Amino acid sequence: MRKVQKENPIPLYYQLKDIILEMIDNMELQAGDPIPPERELCEIHGISRMTARKAIDVLVNEGVIYREQGRGSFVAEAKINQPITRLVGFTEDNKSRGKRTETRLLDFEVRPATKIYAQRLQIPEGSLIIKARRLRTTDGEPISIESIHVPKALFPDLTGDMLDNKSFYSLVEKEYGFTLDYAKQTIEPLIINDYDSELLNQEEEALGLLFRRTTFVKSGKIIEYTKTVYRSDRYRYEITLDR
Amino acid sequence: MRKVQKENPIPLYYQLKDIILEMIDNMELQAGDPIPPERELCEIHGISRMTARKAIDVLVNEGVIYREQGRGSFVAEAKINQPITRLVGFTEDNKSRGKRTETRLLDFEVRPATKIYAQRLQIPEGSLIIKARRLRTTDGEPISIESIHVPKALFPDLTGDMLDNKSFYSLVEKEYGFTLDYAKQTIEPLIINDYDSELLNQEEEALGLLFRRTTFVKSGKIIEYTKTVYRSDRYRYEITLDR
Repeated sequence: MRKVQKENPIPLYYQLKDIILEMIDNMELQAGDPIPPERELCEIHGISRMTARKAIDVLVNEGVIYREQGRGSFVAEAKINQPITRLVGFTEDNKSRGKRTETRLLDFEVRPATKIYAQRLQIPEGSLIIKARRLRTTDGEPISIESIHVPKALFPDLTGDMLDNKSFYSLVEKEYGFTLDYAKQTIEPLIINDYDSELLNQEEEALGLLFRRTTFVKSGKIIEYTKTVYRSDRYRYEITLDR
Repeated sequence: MRKVQKENPIPLYYQLKDIILEMIDNMELQAGDPIPPERELCEIHGISRMTARKAIDVLVNEGVIYREQGRGSFVAEAKINQPITRLVGFTEDNKSRGKRTETRLLDFEVRPATKIYAQRLQIPEGSLIIKARRLRTTDGEPISIESIHVPKALFPDLTGDMLDNKSFYSLVEKEYGFTLDYAKQTIEPLIINDYDSELLNQEEEALGLLFRRTTFVKSGKIIEYTKTVYRSDRYRYEITLDR
């Protein structure tokens, strides 16, 4: 292991983090391998416990290594790249990659659109919207929680049952006769709240991504404004940029 | 203000957070408006200080509100949507939107490719790569820090000067005669480290996004593997999904 250089202006924890990353890059440390214990790192580099811990903390936050209670830290599996450039539903997308998905309805309510939701869905303020929260799992593992908001006027007889373990986009096209056109999706980081982390099987304060999607159908109408919280420890979301 | 319901199974902090969000959605609270102080929230809802603080913390983490030392919490400006679907350089992209950009070279080094970087750039292990770190600013405000990695064989005479406050893609196309084709870009959340937060003018432990970009030219060669840390308090990164 290369050593930190005390005369270097780069903070020591940062140098140590880079040294560990380099060992992973060089495959001297591979998925599942233990990271040297903090006290060993302190001895090797002549640094404080706090500095060693900070380097490890940063790598844990970045999903490069993980801690196991009482056992120490280990190199994590590389994250899986999940393409997100096409407008396809979760069910359809996973099916095409041979994965089994489930979608559990968490709650379903009808309420008047607030000013912001009226803007987001381009409907009059106070007109009804349907809000449904669903938990998505892939091969038995929870991946995301989505909150769909749709104008009730477009889906007058929509019920919770129709959204439980069924594809929303297939419903939109097959039952309601809309033709999907495109969606705008924004991406933000967030700390997953306690309520969602339990459902997503995440530790407290885990990092996640918040996607907000506005979906347009061919007539130009907006049929959904959906906020989805994704866990980020297993996947990296991938887009293709064309020139 | 609607009140939290103690008999509701949804955690109280989460209900309070939703109530505040609703007030923002209804524009009862607008950008710059103060959030009622914690002790007032406690009195109104009959909740503990910890519960009120937790609701505020979540909203701060999500960038919806911000705290000012000794003054309280305020509603943040809505984030600006920044499209990221096309393969354009930072300089070119901002110019098209009438913004003034700067790119400051932070460091420049040549080093042998580790196993991982050899894979990422599809070059032999141990062959030389150039690594350059640059700080990007828009209208004087720091936005991102990028670490470009390029095979030295493709850019044999590249110097730090050539990357200081100049467009890398324009260099690639005009000086080196490559034709950009497409890029794969992955997106992950991260906590911005102390070292980068100082440069990006962020508070400690601020959330950011890590983009990893692999860029291909028409011949099929990979010309860069670039990691970029973006602050996320001002912008939301937006993609368009086509059916």
